Parts: sequence; structure tokens; C-alpha cells
Amino acid sequence: MNTAELAELGQQLRVDSVRAAAAAGSGHPTSSMSAADLMAVLLARHLRYDFERPEHPANDRFVLSKGHASPLLYSAYKAAGVIDDGELLTFRKLGSRLEGHPTPRRLPWVETATGSLGQGLPVGVGIALAGKRLDRSGYRVWVLCGDSELAEGSVWEAAEHAGYEHLDNLVAIVDVNRLGQRGPTRHGHDLAAYARRFQAFDWHTIAVDGHDVDAIDRAYGEALSTTGQPTVILARTLKGKGVAAVQDREGLHGKPLPEPEEAIAELGGPRELHVTVGEPPAAAVLRSLTTEVLQLPHYDQGEEVATRDAFGKALAALGTARGDIVALDGEVGDSTRTELFAKEHPDRFFECYIAEQQLVAAAVGMATRGWVPYASTFAAFFTRAHDFVRMASISGSGINLVGSHAGVAIGQDGPSQMGLEDLAMFRAVYGSTVLYPCDANQTARLVAEMAALDGIRYLRTSRGASPVIYGPDEEFPVGGSKVLRSGDEDRLTVVAAGVTVHEALAAADRLAQDGIAVRVVDLYSVKPVDGQTLRRAAEETGCLVTVEDHHEQGGLGDAVAEAFGDGGPVPRLVRLAVRTMPGSAAPDEQLHAAGIDALGIAAAAKLLVEEAIVG
Amino acid sequence: MNTAELAELGQQLRVDSVRAAAAAGSGHPTSSMSAADLMAVLLARHLRYDFERPEHPANDRFVLSKGHASPLLYSAYKAAGVIDDGELLTFRKLGSRLEGHPTPRRLPWVETATGSLGQGLPVGVGIALAGKRLDRSGYRVWVLCGDSELAEGSVWEAAEHAGYEHLDNLVAIVDVNRLGQRGPTRHGHDLAAYARRFQAFDWHTIAVDGHDVDAIDRAYGEALSTTGQPTVILARTLKGKGVAAVQDREGLHGKPLPEPEEAIAELGGPRELHVTVGEPPAAAVLRSLTTEVLQLPHYDQGEEVATRDAFGKALAALGTARGDIVALDGEVGDSTRTELFAKEHPDRFFECYIAEQQLVAAAVGMATRGWVPYASTFAAFFTRAHDFVRMASISGSGINLVGSHAGVAIGQDGPSQMGLEDLAMFRAVYGSTVLYPCDANQTARLVAEMAALDGIRYLRTSRGASPVIYGPDEEFPVGGSKVLRSGDEDRLTVVAAGVTVHEALAAADRLAQDGIAVRVVDLYSVKPVDGQTLRRAAEETGCLVTVEDHHEQGGLGDAVAEAFGDGGPVPRLVRLAVRTMPGSAAPDEQLHAAGIDALGIAAAAKLLVEEAIVG
Repeated sequence: MNTAELAELGQQLRVDSVRAAAAAGSGHPTSSMSAADLMAVLLARHLRYDFERPEHPANDRFVLSKGHASPLLYSAYKAAGVIDDGELLTFRKLGSRLEGHPTPRRLPWVETATGSLGQGLPVGVGIALAGKRLDRSGYRVWVLCGDSELAEGSVWEAAEHAGYEHLDNLVAIVDVNRLGQRGPTRHGHDLAAYARRFQAFDWHTIAVDGHDVDAIDRAYGEALSTTGQPTVILARTLKGKGVAAVQDREGLHGKPLPEPEEAIAELGGPRELHVTVGEPPAAAVLRSLTTEVLQLPHYDQGEEVATRDAFGKALAALGTARGDIVALDGEVGDSTRTELFAKEHPDRFFECYIAEQQLVAAAVGMATRGWVPYASTFAAFFTRAHDFVRMASISGSGINLVGSHAGVAIGQDGPSQMGLEDLAMFRAVYGSTVLYPCDANQTARLVAEMAALDGIRYLRTSRGASPVIYGPDEEFPVGGSKVLRSGDEDRLTVVAAGVTVHEALAAADRLAQDGIAVRVVDLYSVKPVDGQTLRRAAEETGCLVTVEDHHEQGGLGDAVAEAFGDGGPVPRLVRLAVRTMPGSAAPDEQLHAAGIDALGIAAAAKLLVEEAIVG
Repeated sequence: MNTAELAELGQQLRVDSVRAAAAAGSGHPTSSMSAADLMAVLLARHLRYDFERPEHPANDRFVLSKGHASPLLYSAYKAAGVIDDGELLTFRKLGSRLEGHPTPRRLPWVETATGSLGQGLPVGVGIALAGKRLDRSGYRVWVLCGDSELAEGSVWEAAEHAGYEHLDNLVAIVDVNRLGQRGPTRHGHDLAAYARRFQAFDWHTIAVDGHDVDAIDRAYGEALSTTGQPTVILARTLKGKGVAAVQDREGLHGKPLPEPEEAIAELGGPRELHVTVGEPPAAAVLRSLTTEVLQLPHYDQGEEVATRDAFGKALAALGTARGDIVALDGEVGDSTRTELFAKEHPDRFFECYIAEQQLVAAAVGMATRGWVPYASTFAAFFTRAHDFVRMASISGSGINLVGSHAGVAIGQDGPSQMGLEDLAMFRAVYGSTVLYPCDANQTARLVAEMAALDGIRYLRTSRGASPVIYGPDEEFPVGGSKVLRSGDEDRLTVVAAGVTVHEALAAADRLAQDGIAVRVVDLYSVKPVDGQTLRRAAEETGCLVTVEDHHEQGGLGDAVAEAFGDGGPVPRLVRLAVRTMPGSAAPDEQLHAAGIDALGIAAAAKLLVEEAIVG
């Protein structure tokens, strides 16, 4: 396409964005119009992408970080011939693939769900890292950002990471249209303000008139020929460009144009240009990945092993057996024990430093390319990446997240380091799996098993050592549980997981001496939960006492209650959990203060029996 | 103090840090030793602080962002004479005020809890904003940061905010000791790398040898005389400075020194220097704040009003009545409706742009100075600030967070904008309050009421209009609920909140036509929950059906189950919630697809009655 045709294509993308939003009665046409020329030139001149084969290993990758500009994306799909005009006009309607913000669950050409701002670039960094260090394919990663979203710290985590890693396969395009949702951005059209910031993080920067298609073309060319550092193209644009009634005006974010027919006429009317998008290189490098029989470490019953150690060793073994396993850490690999993987597989280990949003985003990015990431930090610090986990679930991303230092059991470091909300956070994520092992053999099995699951998988590990109670050949299906003590005389059932399993067993022994039999269930699969075993325990013992090293909301107690949320009979339920704000103390003192140690469990059980609350 | 004495004080702080960690058997002495000279000079020469009156309005404010260097902080307290040596040696022990990471809940001189890295500077920005725009007192805010934590995006949200707001009352001191937890930082001792970054965000930067007390003194002086922009002092230091066995060596993070006695000898032995810290100016400006009778907006029953509109109007009215109310927003004030407050009280409105971590941190910072902040963004985007909310709860911070656009009821924008995990997140926060009103009068009352509560208070608002069902004089105590339909023949109880209250009422009407009476409870206080009303409903109707515009984990269903977690009899429980991943669709289509509209509720109730699951 020549200059005039590129400009025409830009106008077509504007017209179609206006039409889609008008048909929907909602959407973000003005945010699409500002970036239309940027998209037109990319599509027609620089993107190498086989729409018929979105999985092609050499395809460039495009991420619409400003996901609200979805009308522009869908108009581009139409110009590329992969959706028709009829589908374009289903935008935002029930059942349409063309959602308000794009998601890969519904559209094969979307790499990652966007719509929460500041996430596209960090995920793009993950894809670019995969391109450089794993796939070693020549693909480019193009990320179209808004200017408003540059206020998000996650963007600067990404800028830091990309600059440091010399990701010259990554190009950020910033649509600097100067207007956010509720008014002007901090820096307006001051491209130099953004350039200074990106330059400080070691990026190559190019300022350009975002409505001059030749200038845009040259900028993309310069980005492609830049080596040793990522490039950001800062494009001065006008929101609502091309329609006087809305161009560069406030108060029109996220609204269809007031007079769409007039606007379309002003833009020169509908066009039917078709773009032939460049092909990726045919000779793509195919990965040849190891596949060996998995040899998990084994532990002898009675050994004292921390589940975080068992995780690190199992992950290293999994990495040996499977070449598609990668590990990432937030600069605490000596604590989470991913350092064991890093030592054995340094080429597949990614240090993300203390930047948990980028940590999770990098995992999401790598997962888009077929890698199976395990990202680790302290359980408490995954709260920092909650929004990224949420968006990953919308993407349908398959990532493994492993949080160490769970609960008050960590001891002296105090509440800032204690994961006490992580089970609640991960349980509430759509389609997630939440696992919480109590011994080393169980941990090893679950680490291997989680790799094959769909969606977000969370494993919670503990800091301190605990005795191995299961044999190395025992199996732990996700959605299962283990009944560790059981008899006909059980007066109640203690449901525990992780560190409290050992406390529950000790409590059961203590209670047995007093003639009180209790059942003990190890609920290592917190989500999905083993409703069958819980219902049987309910029928046979009448009362379930949950014990968790977590706040009382959203964790084990709620998981057990959920199993009885189908209208069936519900047993008596008692919750032991962390109800006060811990300070510093030794691990055993912490468990005791929270009332979730063997003494606390035994005392609660005795009270229930003595007050005849249970049979 | 002269140069030699300052150096001696630095050594004393090192010795005491080593002693405290040795007594505890854990802690971070090496991270304290690197910053000891920085702390000594600050304490002896520049800080203006009355330890006897930590609430003094003109006190400087000091934030230890690298909270793990708590031994240094406590050693400084000892040098200032506010704790004694005996207490210093209680460090990290059960019951001690001297926790592994400092918290204001236990120590009056601590401004905010730290220990999750990258939070001190954003909170410091909030305090500095209060100093500049609210208190208009001349205090300085000093924040001591680590170098590792500069990888956190939240630090750059803070850098952006402080530079843009010209916060020349803010001084960041970065202890660049080049070593993180598991090894070297990205930039080691490259002070210029950090300087470039801060300069790009419009900060004044000073590089200094962090062990040269005269140079440090000059740097602090330069910071104090810098106007129009914040200053960062980048101090080149050595981790474990002064003890050859640990100085500048890897693998020693978070560990007591291996040979503390030898180390203390090498540092010149214990000292008993006492520091006289400078007094704040006596003539502090006292705030004269409005206190008028609150005149909340009233709504007529039957009016259609969105609860987000009612929130905005109530907040503006509250701001008129109370001069200590401030509002903050994440660049969506036209959606959350804080724009109504901003229009009436522009001097007390803070635009935080799209930086939700800084949004919450600014609220926390202002709350430390006695202001009562309301911070708003979409409910979904508070997940971005989860770790800040978690830490705020450890601080005991009293902040109001208001999340709009809750649930699938927002409609076409799709899942990225839907708050579907927010109730789970906020319920699991220690000491939190979670409110979810269904009409405008209820919203107005709760907005006013929440201001007086302790801890984190969350209010969930809805995008679309809903009918006013309560009169303007109705009261809604926190921890209460409203029984909206009730009779002797009730076969079950529908428990709803927010948007589902209206669906539940419509379902009850529909069911009544079929001869099925159901009770309807409006559970506007999700935490604390009205156990009494729920238990009565359980006794009288035998079955509770919860209906929520939220994922099935952690929200209303779990809140109701929690009310029965005390070992008492539990009714049958049925949960209606969002169980699939929504796409784009109209609000009513979304509610229907999720099975939480009147039809879905009525169908579930009918099934329960017809299958004789309920009496």
C-alpha cells in the first residue's frame, strides 16, 4: 500500500470503529480513532502474521494493551479478512466473539485479555522473553498502549525488565492522545516527558506524528532495525481524530459518537479495503524439547522436610523430565526454593526481581507461547499481582503460581510476610485450582500434577520443616483428600491442610487418650474440594471443625462450607482460623496464639463434646 | 554532634542492630548496617521530631520503607532515649513491641507498617501531599528505601506522583547496598542508573557516599534547600558495613551475624551515645476544620438512582459537613462519581490518575495525619492495590475504599471491568468492614456511617440505576440487615445484597403468585454479618438461598455460611452466584445468564420446594 492507501485504510478503520460502536450503543470509538493510522501502517506494512495459523511459531505477536480500543482491533480483523462486516456489527452483543475488551478465550488472534490498563506491556515482555530466550524464533512483539496507562507502575516494571534484558524484539507503540477517561492526562502531548522516562529505563525512543502514515512507517522501520534495546514509539495523536464534533474533546470517552452517520460521512464514508498481512518466515525454528520419564524425589516417612524444599526439588526434577517447564521468581528464590531449578536449568529460569506484577505477567506471556511456567514468591506478595491473576483467568491462561511462607507459622518475621489472605484470593479466581500440601511426598506429586491442569493453579508451601507422613507412591488427585484418622466412634471431623494437618493429628492422639475419637481429613485440594469425603464425614460424625493457618474468611472454612451449598443437609460447622493480628513470635507460639495448634484443636473438640454440641 | 561523633553514632546503631538480631536469633542486621550512617546523620542533625508527642502537627515524618531494617530503627529509638536496652533485646520475641517489621499498631513513632517492599515511598507521598495541601504545616517526610525495592512499579507510581505534584517536602533516601535477598540487584552500585530514572520523573537527585557522614549531612542540607521538586539521595553503601566477615557479601540477607561478639568488637564495642533530636517548630499551624450538621441527600421511594450516584452525592455532602473528609480517585471520577465531591471541594480532592497502588497508599498516608480519606476506583481495579490494602490493615489504618461497577450487572464492557472478586478480597482483610447497598438512601447512610469505623472499610456500588426502596429516615447499622419480605408461611429465605435485592423482591412476588411464600433479607452489611437475623431465618424457614453478583467463593454465600460456623445448627444452604466467565451483553442479559435474576431465583426456589428439599 502506498501513502494514500494507508491513509485510506486508517479512515476505514475509523469508520468501522464508529459503526461498530454505533451498532452496539456503547464502546470506545474515539480511543480507536486516535490509533487508527498506527494500526493501519502496522497491519499493512510491518506485521508478519498468518491469520489462518495463529499458532505459527514465527508469527509476530500483537497485544492491544489499551483493550478498550477493541473496535479498532476488530476493524483491523475485518480489513484482514478474518471477520466479516456482519460479525463486526455484533460488537458487544450477547454471544458475540467481539467483546467490549478482547479475550483469547473467544478470539484466536488475541494473545492475552486486556481491559485492565498497564497489563499489555508486562505480558508483552513475557512473550518477548520467550522469543529471545526460549523459542529463539525471530518474531516481534508489538504492544499498542494508551498514554493514560503509563501512570501504572506495572508499565515501569515492564520498562525496567525489557531494558535490562535488551529486548530488541519488543516494540511499544504509545497512542498519546492526551485524554484519559475523565480528562487530560498528566503530560498531555508532551512526548518528551514520556521519552525521558523510557530512555532512563534504557529504551530507544522515537517521537512521531501519529497521523502521518509515512512517518509512522519510518518509525516502525527504525524500531525493527534497532538492536540491543527495546523501542517505544511515542505517537502524538488526537482522540476522535477525523470527526470535528469529537476530535480532541473531553467528555467523550467510552461513548458512541453522537451523530454516527454524519461522522461516517465526514470520514469519507465506508470503504472495503482489504489488507494482505505479511507472512511470517516459512522456516520457523521448531523447538525440540526434552521428554523423559519424570523422576520425582522421594522422601522417607518421618523425615522432616519443608514443603518449600520439596517444591524446589520437584520443580527441578520436572524441569529435567520436561523441556517446556520454565520457572520465574521475584528475587526470593533462596526462600521459595526455585533456586534449585535455577541451578539445574539456568536457561529456563527467569529472575524478575522484586516486581510481582511483572513476575505474573511474564508467566502469562510465556504461557501464550506454549511454555509451562511456575512463578514463585511469598504467598503474601502474590496479593501485589492480584489484578494480573484476575486478568490471566479471563485469558484462560495456564500458569502455576507457588506461594511460600504461608501463614503465621513463618514465625518471627511478623504479619507483613505472612500469607493470610492467599487462599481467599486464589479461591475467588475463576476456574482456579488451589492446593495446599502438608508433606514432602504430597508436595512433589502435586507440583507435577498441576502442570497438566487448566487455568490458574496455586500451590501454597510452608517455611518450616514438617514430618513426612505419606509414602512416596501415594497418589493425590486434584479434587481429592486423605482421611488420616477414622473410626466408627468418631465424634467429629477435623478438616485441616498444610501445617495444621500435623497439629490435627497431634490433637487426635491427645483426644484419643481422653477417650474422644475424632476423624482427621487432609484437605490438600482446597479447590476443587472433595465434597464426597466431606459429606460422608458429615453424615458419620455430624460436625466438621476446620483448622487453617489463614484468616477465617475465604479459606478452608469457606471451602468446606461451599461443599454443602447445594441444598443438602449441612453438618455443624466450627472454624478455627487466625482471628487476631499476629506480631513477632516463634512458629509454635504463633500457632498457639492463633488457637490452631494441637492444643487449640483438642480444646475446641473437647468443648464440643463436653457441651454435648456434638453427639 | 561533630563528624567523629556522628560516625560513632553510626557505629552504635550497627552494634545495637547486631545485638538485637543476635538476641532474637533472626532479623536483618546486615541491611541495617548499610544504612546506619544515613540514619545517624538524619537523627542527630536534620529530623525535627518530638518523641514525647508523636501526634505533634509539625513533627517531621519518617518512614522506613525497607522495613526489614527494623533493628536499625529500634537502635535509633534507643539512641533517642525512647526505648531502653532491655526492650531493644526483646526484638522479635512474643509480646514485644519490636516486631520483625515495624507497625504503628504497636509503636507510636511508626507512621505506617512496612515489610512489603515498595510501599514506604507511596505512603510517604500521601503524607507529603497532606503536608502540602491539607495540613499546610512545614513538616518534611523522610523515606528510607532499599535499592532492591526500586524494582517495584509502585515506587515509580510514587515517583511520578511526587514529581508532578512538586513535593519538595519529600526526601527519599536510597540505601544502595547493591545486594538484594538472593544476590546482586540489577544495577549494583550504579547510582547513575537510579539517578537517570528519578530525574526522568522530575526529581532532584544527589549521589553520595553513604558512609561519609559529612557528605550525608551536606546531602540532607541540599535536599532541605531544594524547592519545587522532591529529592532523592542515592547513597552508595555496603551491606554489613564495618564487619569484614559479612561486609558486601552475598548469602547473608536476613540472618544474624555468625559471630556477633567478634563483630561487636570489630565495630568498637557497645556505646551509650544519646541523641537529642531536633524539636519541631512550636508554632504549628492548627487546622480549623468545618463541622456542620450533615445533610444527606434524600431520595423518594420509587425513584431510579444508581448507588454510585448516591455515593458521590453523599460524599460531597459529607465533605460539606466535615472538613476532615478527603477524596481520591484513580482517574475514573466520572464513573465512580467522586467528581461530585471534586466539584464542591476541589481543595480536598486528589486525582491519582491510573495508579491504584498510589491511590490507596495516598489514602493511607493522609489517614496517618488524621484525615478521613475516601478512595475510589472500579471494584475490579482495587485488586491492583490488594497488597496495599493488606498492609494498611496491618497498620490499623482507617481508610474508606469505594469500588464501583460491581459484578456482571455492568453489562457490555465485559469481565475485565467487572468486580467479581472484590467481596472475597475485602472480607479476608483483617478487621475490615464490607458494605454493599442496594438503594440510594441506604447508600447515603452507609457512606456517612463508614467514616466513623475502625480499619479498612469497603463500600461496593453499582453502575446501573435501581429503584429506591427505603425511606430517607431508615437507619442501616453496620452489622445489620433488613428483612424485606416475611411471613409465617415462608418456605425459604433469599439472602441478597446490592443489585440482587431487587431481583429477589421480584422473584418473591413471582413466587407468591404461585403460592410459594419466601422471606427476603437485604444483607447490606456483608462483614460484619447479621448472624441473629440469619439464624432466625434459618430456624423459621430451614433454608437460606444466597444470591450474589460475585463469584461463588468468598462473597455473600461464604459470609452467610460464616454466620453458622460456631457449632450451632446449620440450615440448608443454596448458592446462586456467577459461575461462568461472562462475555459482553446487556445488564439484564448478564444477570439472566448468571442465573441470578428474578427468573433464576424463582426457578431455584421452585425446584427446592417441588423436590421437597425445603419444607
